[in-house]
Amino acid sequence: MNNHWELLATTIAKVTELDGPLMELVASKQQQLTKPANSLGRLEKLSARLAGITHQIAPPLRPRSVIVCAGDHGVTIEGVSAYPAEVTTQMVYNFLAGGAAINVLARQFGVNVIVLDVGVNGDLPTHPQLRNLKVRRGTGNLAQGLAMTRSEAVAAIEAGIQVAQAEIAAGAKLLITGEMGIGNTTPSAAITALITGLPVSQVTGMGTGVGLVGWRRKCAVIEGALTLHLPDINDPIDVLSKVGGLEIGAIAGVIIAGAAARVPVVIDGLISTAGAAIAALLCPAVKSFMIAGHRGVEPGHTALLDYLDLTPVLDLNLALGEGTGAVLALPILEAAVATLNEMATFDDAQIARERGNEMNWFTEMLIA
Amino acid sequence: MNNHWELLATTIAKVTELDGPLMELVASKQQQLTKPANSLGRLEKLSARLAGITHQIAPPLRPRSVIVCAGDHGVTIEGVSAYPAEVTTQMVYNFLAGGAAINVLARQFGVNVIVLDVGVNGDLPTHPQLRNLKVRRGTGNLAQGLAMTRSEAVAAIEAGIQVAQAEIAAGAKLLITGEMGIGNTTPSAAITALITGLPVSQVTGMGTGVGLVGWRRKCAVIEGALTLHLPDINDPIDVLSKVGGLEIGAIAGVIIAGAAARVPVVIDGLISTAGAAIAALLCPAVKSFMIAGHRGVEPGHTALLDYLDLTPVLDLNLALGEGTGAVLALPILEAAVATLNEMATFDDAQIARERGNEMNWFTEMLIA
Repeated sequence: MNNHWELLATTIAKVTELDGPLMELVASKQQQLTKPANSLGRLEKLSARLAGITHQIAPPLRPRSVIVCAGDHGVTIEGVSAYPAEVTTQMVYNFLAGGAAINVLARQFGVNVIVLDVGVNGDLPTHPQLRNLKVRRGTGNLAQGLAMTRSEAVAAIEAGIQVAQAEIAAGAKLLITGEMGIGNTTPSAAITALITGLPVSQVTGMGTGVGLVGWRRKCAVIEGALTLHLPDINDPIDVLSKVGGLEIGAIAGVIIAGAAARVPVVIDGLISTAGAAIAALLCPAVKSFMIAGHRGVEPGHTALLDYLDLTPVLDLNLALGEGTGAVLALPILEAAVATLNEMATFDDAQIARERGNEMNWFTEMLIA
Repeated sequence: MNNHWELLATTIAKVTELDGPLMELVASKQQQLTKPANSLGRLEKLSARLAGITHQIAPPLRPRSVIVCAGDHGVTIEGVSAYPAEVTTQMVYNFLAGGAAINVLARQFGVNVIVLDVGVNGDLPTHPQLRNLKVRRGTGNLAQGLAMTRSEAVAAIEAGIQVAQAEIAAGAKLLITGEMGIGNTTPSAAITALITGLPVSQVTGMGTGVGLVGWRRKCAVIEGALTLHLPDINDPIDVLSKVGGLEIGAIAGVIIAGAAARVPVVIDGLISTAGAAIAALLCPAVKSFMIAGHRGVEPGHTALLDYLDLTPVLDLNLALGEGTGAVLALPILEAAVATLNEMATFDDAQIARERGNEMNWFTEMLIA
């Protein structure tokens, strides 16, 4: 944590661009497979994207880790969440005990769950799945002052980079972002309004179920904070330090580290996507290295996905976070790679192709 | 095949209704799990539906089989498809050799591939995955006359019932419908226009890529056939015999057999959904026993899903058929069952619930 900015700057410097020629080769290979042109739809685009990220036509997508970035939010004192702030700590215990939704899905889909404590306001045990890089015990209340200092904002991002790099060094071929932090839809909606220019009321949702009165309060808190702080969109560290949160910074770090290592990063819902937006402000090239796992119900999520030019794989009305929607998308990614690499070609299977024009039939019809 | 109608009638008679009390119990159990209320969105609805179908809270979803119903279409002579009719036979060989998209996905997701030849206009080998219940070698050209006789229509449905019942007897806990039949988007669009009352041009798509001139011809052929035959929507066997196809009838049979045995049936794209519509006309109660795997790009698919009151799990711009979109949805179904059954409850994990109202916090906050 001593050389602030150094790890971030050197990691950003490693991010280049997608492998365009390989993506063209994939698109051309798709046309040879025994299916009508483009009929695998989104799967064809995903297989090309994954090849472009990894430099491989058949990239391995295992082992893989979901990095659940956890932090608390001083703004909860304003009554913006349906749950008390203590639930952040309680849910981390639940993650470590294997009882949360992300644990169930991770077991089902073969994903390691790593919890990154970047700012939980509670004491946590030593545990093989827990990484303690706590920057501070929760953010300050953005309605009254800074969420964190600039230095803490950089430290939060670098915590995400460190944990991601450690997972990659341990063999991870794919990373998934997840999060836990009671109150964190509030800074996420603030970031969304700031970045997209949309009205706060249009990008602010019910979070975990705050009710209409709570929603109005939440909107007012966000509007007040944006007026109070006037965060500078050209300075993403300024944005993060003014509205938070620590886990949003860590998510940005995970994404940057994945992009730098050419490891695909599957992002989850609104909060992960707010982290993705911070990452993209710091380093626009990272956008190509992310895959949006799903579209959640939070209204700001769609706005941020549009801003990042990301099309979500799934749309299942999820509003849970933790990385759940991103993990659910993994079988689709695996299917994209598998169909590209395992299907027979027209030549292999001796199958007639579509007619070159509408009058002529292909003649070399050979039945195997 | 001798006792036409008997198998169909006795199977329909076994279809009852969803287990409403168990579905309510599932909904109540969802509220106890360590997540905000309703935050698993579609997964919560799927776990309830699967319980309602199977009478089990933790229904096993394996082993399972995709029944790829294959048949040819006399209407291909009108130039409604981008591919020559011979490709139906060639693709069946590809299925049996394991090289098609459905084979790749079935291997990935642990699904048995069974091909049902209910009307392929070609000679096929004996093969452990092939069921030969050929009713006739392709349908007649619906633009000129009947696709098949009423008796053949019933036989096609009963072929689907027989194969589905055999799979269930062999242990299948879930069935997936798939299909192969060059030209089969034409009868499917005809069924869709007839059932939904929408204009032919609005429910007819490009199929496997017929081009604009071909699309206009396809629309004209469908409009002409509907005018020629005036199929009676109150008599689904009349509809099937007039427009076809044999595999669409077989799919209807698979769905009815699944519902009768309380085995969930995941349906695929437009053609499978046309079969589902025939099944629902024969026996409206089957609608509750189907799960729509995905929404495909064919415009009629959305119209039919609405008609059947089915919400697709995925939306991936697929236009392939074979059962691919349905198989891709299976991990989501498994995730729905797993989260319901494996997540910790608030009490288990000693986690504070959401506040009863917006002023009071829950007091029994115990950190594990």
